[in-house]
Amino acid sequence: MALVVKLSGRIFNDEALVLRYAKVLSERQERIGVVVGGGDIARRYIAVARRGGASPTFQDLLGIQASRLNALLLVSLVSDACPRVPASLEEFLDAWRRCRVVIAGGFQPGQSTATVAALVAEAVGASVLANAASVDAIYTDDPRRNPEAKRLPELKYDELEKLVRSSPAPGGYELVDPWSIAILRRSCISLYVFDGRRPEYLLAVMRGENPGSRVVC
Amino acid sequence: MALVVKLSGRIFNDEALVLRYAKVLSERQERIGVVVGGGDIARRYIAVARRGGASPTFQDLLGIQASRLNALLLVSLVSDACPRVPASLEEFLDAWRRCRVVIAGGFQPGQSTATVAALVAEAVGASVLANAASVDAIYTDDPRRNPEAKRLPELKYDELEKLVRSSPAPGGYELVDPWSIAILRRSCISLYVFDGRRPEYLLAVMRGENPGSRVVC
Amino acid sequence: MALVVKLSGRIFNDEALVLRYAKVLSERQERIGVVVGGGDIARRYIAVARRGGASPTFQDLLGIQASRLNALLLVSLVSDACPRVPASLEEFLDAWRRCRVVIAGGFQPGQSTATVAALVAEAVGASVLANAASVDAIYTDDPRRNPEAKRLPELKYDELEKLVRSSPAPGGYELVDPWSIAILRRSCISLYVFDGRRPEYLLAVMRGENPGSRVVC
Amino acid sequence: MALVVKLSGRIFNDEALVLRYAKVLSERQERIGVVVGGGDIARRYIAVARRGGASPTFQDLLGIQASRLNALLLVSLVSDACPRVPASLEEFLDAWRRCRVVIAGGFQPGQSTATVAALVAEAVGASVLANAASVDAIYTDDPRRNPEAKRLPELKYDELEKLVRSSPAPGGYELVDPWSIAILRRSCISLYVFDGRRPEYLLAVMRGENPGSRVVC
Amino acid sequence: MALVVKLSGRIFNDEALVLRYAKVLSERQERIGVVVGGGDIARRYIAVARRGGASPTFQDLLGIQASRLNALLLVSLVSDACPRVPASLEEFLDAWRRCRVVIAGGFQPGQSTATVAALVAEAVGASVLANAASVDAIYTDDPRRNPEAKRLPELKYDELEKLVRSSPAPGGYELVDPWSIAILRRSCISLYVFDGRRPEYLLAVMRGENPGSRVVC
Amino acid sequence: MALVVKLSGRIFNDEALVLRYAKVLSERQERIGVVVGGGDIARRYIAVARRGGASPTFQDLLGIQASRLNALLLVSLVSDACPRVPASLEEFLDAWRRCRVVIAGGFQPGQSTATVAALVAEAVGASVLANAASVDAIYTDDPRRNPEAKRLPELKYDELEKLVRSSPAPGGYELVDPWSIAILRRSCISLYVFDGRRPEYLLAVMRGENPGSRVVC
Repeated sequence: MALVVKLSGRIFNDEALVLRYAKVLSERQERIGVVVGGGDIARRYIAVARRGGASPTFQDLLGIQASRLNALLLVSLVSDACPRVPASLEEFLDAWRRCRVVIAGGFQPGQSTATVAALVAEAVGASVLANAASVDAIYTDDPRRNPEAKRLPELKYDELEKLVRSSPAPGGYELVDPWSIAILRRSCISLYVFDGRRPEYLLAVMRGENPGSRVVC
Repeated sequence: MALVVKLSGRIFNDEALVLRYAKVLSERQERIGVVVGGGDIARRYIAVARRGGASPTFQDLLGIQASRLNALLLVSLVSDACPRVPASLEEFLDAWRRCRVVIAGGFQPGQSTATVAALVAEAVGASVLANAASVDAIYTDDPRRNPEAKRLPELKYDELEKLVRSSPAPGGYELVDPWSIAILRRSCISLYVFDGRRPEYLLAVMRGENPGSRVVC
Repeated sequence: MALVVKLSGRIFNDEALVLRYAKVLSERQERIGVVVGGGDIARRYIAVARRGGASPTFQDLLGIQASRLNALLLVSLVSDACPRVPASLEEFLDAWRRCRVVIAGGFQPGQSTATVAALVAEAVGASVLANAASVDAIYTDDPRRNPEAKRLPELKYDELEKLVRSSPAPGGYELVDPWSIAILRRSCISLYVFDGRRPEYLLAVMRGENPGSRVVC
Repeated sequence: MALVVKLSGRIFNDEALVLRYAKVLSERQERIGVVVGGGDIARRYIAVARRGGASPTFQDLLGIQASRLNALLLVSLVSDACPRVPASLEEFLDAWRRCRVVIAGGFQPGQSTATVAALVAEAVGASVLANAASVDAIYTDDPRRNPEAKRLPELKYDELEKLVRSSPAPGGYELVDPWSIAILRRSCISLYVFDGRRPEYLLAVMRGENPGSRVVC
Repeated sequence: MALVVKLSGRIFNDEALVLRYAKVLSERQERIGVVVGGGDIARRYIAVARRGGASPTFQDLLGIQASRLNALLLVSLVSDACPRVPASLEEFLDAWRRCRVVIAGGFQPGQSTATVAALVAEAVGASVLANAASVDAIYTDDPRRNPEAKRLPELKYDELEKLVRSSPAPGGYELVDPWSIAILRRSCISLYVFDGRRPEYLLAVMRGENPGSRVVC
Repeated sequence: MALVVKLSGRIFNDEALVLRYAKVLSERQERIGVVVGGGDIARRYIAVARRGGASPTFQDLLGIQASRLNALLLVSLVSDACPRVPASLEEFLDAWRRCRVVIAGGFQPGQSTATVAALVAEAVGASVLANAASVDAIYTDDPRRNPEAKRLPELKYDELEKLVRSSPAPGGYELVDPWSIAILRRSCISLYVFDGRRPEYLLAVMRGENPGSRVVC
């Protein structure tokens, strides 16, 4: 059974963490699709571009290029990973036919890597999307700003969508955006959100455990 | 000044209409980016695929391929149009450097052609996106189902977003989806929505008139 | 042993028929190359383009694009089919190295899908090309126009070539054109022509039967 | 007005001749499309491949690759020539939008460079195809074998087609094959055939003279 | 007259410096080819890859990918720059036909960006390669380690080659490697080496001044 | 264990020799990467280009194109060889994932096929690079010019580098250039140099014998 993993770009700020994820991915036998975010590198390059007056298009393209650099780093460390980072869903599917592990970054401007991960999960017929996130679970509100925020270990996509809709930053590139929810729900893929600083949680998800939040259709 | 036009896929059901749009695009001197929808051909192929159990990924890919067939038809009829239909935003920008008119269909699964049109408008620095739609304007509700629906000649993106959020089909591929609104708003591009069966309305938009609805930031 | 199948574009006018062919292709174990025609969609788009004054080049390109849409539909329905529709013989050979079934449409302007099928059969070393045609066999003349036309269950390429040469439409994109005959003959590939509305006939050809006409070198 | 020139591969056996053609192409101001044959290099590589049991597909691919080597040599010598040799008609059209001179070899197996030249002439809207041939004109029969063969300074495509049909080698890669005739006729492009060892004859054709044979629709 | 500029990757550690270079490149009218190094980002990613046991091939590929991220940042900031970062010399030449400014990073493993810059200078026929370096000039020895090192304002490629040959790190990716010297010398391109922290020195080189070292053939 | 073979372009002057190498490569079970030189065809095309004033860039590109023609010939003759000749190291790695034998020519201007072979050996993790050369071993000097030259059956990369450094043609495209030495040494790949006219010597190298010179780190 195929699994798709979304790695928060923040993971790439910590090189020991990258090496530990590489080890986990190398040692498993399952077929695994991986989508990685751009992280701090992306943020830094986008900030320079914005300061210099670059268009949002190029800001997005820089974020994509940075996420691909992260993806290539992981490729270089994972045995059985496809040597090239696919640049579109068609390329991902092509690579998926011949490699146990395929690792991608972003695909197109206007599409978050969360959406890419959802599309990839759907395309390879995965029943689970494991999101190694920059938060440890889904909350009723941002726990860093609101101490009353309640942790939600188990929820449905309808509930998640309401949470996202009520958030003040629609269309932003958060953990989950409306687009990725729509895709995961239409194909009934279970989403696991867990603390990306803990690679052992990915192994837990593979065993069917829920180390953070689980969203089901 | 560059202009971007979104042509509803429905226009391609009526060949006389296609020829009239081709004439309008050929006779102008402006630089024009065009994004076309998949229309009935897309719907028909997606329906067969769904009946046969094809994945949503391939349903999306079929819709994209159909929209590119529509785009190529228009290319064949418009003088100065770039001969190849770009398959990504990078390819669009590349083509834009050497042709007065560039015509595209969809780019990636999980992205409506409405979103593609918004991304293209942003990428080429257009101040206007002219949407030759399957409706004649934006209404407070679907006028085909609700006779009380009020026509909105002028509105802001905030209002449009509220309308879209309250609609029962979030994440669908409608006239405007939350994603395209977010892009148009962040770059402050004016959106004109008008009846796609009236190519003369496109000329009206070029003259600065508003034959349907106008959305501003 | 590899088999190559040419599917008449007309098959794609009948969605139940498409689903039945998809089932046949999915259930077999053999390696199968498939080339599909453009059918009515191609004809319709080419007609609009011609009416609008498009060049023959673009008319051909539209036919190719339509045949690729048909090919992608079949890809979406056949398990083990390569996810991308190859756009040239090199791409076909590349795909053939990694998928049991590879499905293509046209390759280049000035080349019928009949010729593409012959080239593909030669390239993969197939000994048989099964042509699921818009006619049920080869006749001495067009049976729809000439009631005296005799059905030919078995013939040699020399005879077929004389028939084609004496036909009034040289260079057209018929069932078999001089080019595809030349290729099939030089590589001594047997051609089976049978009624494309009968998918069971494809199974018959796989069993070595001749449900229509057989042409040998 | 655009002109398309077909250069016989034999021209590339004589380096002084190549340099003279390069000079002619460099000094003109017209937009010129050029298609070159594979010549002796192609023949030699194909012969080795055949001796070693290579398939006809690879023999064709070697001929194409050799013709592209000839094309690249000419590119290196002609100012204003597009730096890359296009590998398909779409790539040719793309290059044609930005370079005064575009030089190609073959495109696809099963397609002679004569056919490629006809397709290119049609695609760029040329009214003339100038064929710098390995013969000095069209004859009623092969003048090297039949001393009675009559030179034909002026003929129609109907007559040319009858000549080609009566020749003993249908489907071969001669000066003109049925496919290229069909293309040139459908777009009413005049074909000039002249002695390829005389670059000055190309200039003559540009002046409207007929230094060999002219075929009209 | 075309100019080629090599920007040390170190420049990209300082965002104000990047913006100043972008301004210089935007304001000029000349045609300018730019090749940028990977800088600290490259070094950091390569170090993680090496620690994790990645092959030298992937270490090189990471360096190339990082240099392309730097290149894309500059593209986003320079008006008239080609939107895509070329990945090979052929792509560079193609882009050069249609944009005033073309910006690249590395091309292939085993090739320093210094060599890429030399190849690009040769390919576009530049007479000058301006190297905005991490040192302020060429010295007889490394001035950071040897206080006796003498600054060389003017030298010949023969002398430079002797200096490079006597250095303890043959084959490394320094300012100039034997390969780039061989290319610059064979095409007699003048090399200016100057302090990359001073964008005004690039303007000086454009005026024919020598703000650091000049190497001639 | 993977093996990489470098075939001197001269081998392609002798068609019987090409067929014998094809037989050796076809009959083995090992995974083999092959890099071939351009040989006399390359030299001849480069000479014409130089006479006509073509730039060194195009001279290099012609050499690469000629080497790819040689590579394609070998592809056509070797069973299990990947059908397409990879044009970059990324493409080589991609092909390597799905074919037992992958055959390439040159990659980029400014990079000898000797360097390409070293890069390929490193990329696929080969421990041996077998160089079927135009000489029968490494000598202390050119044995064709200096009768005192001593044959070196066994040497270290340090010694080889000194020999190459003292040669009068730095940067030329010889048997081994400083770049390929640097790569082979950094990855500790053993280099076997032997007489390319003797395909049986390749078998000897596969058995661990040394029919010419061996260079180790």
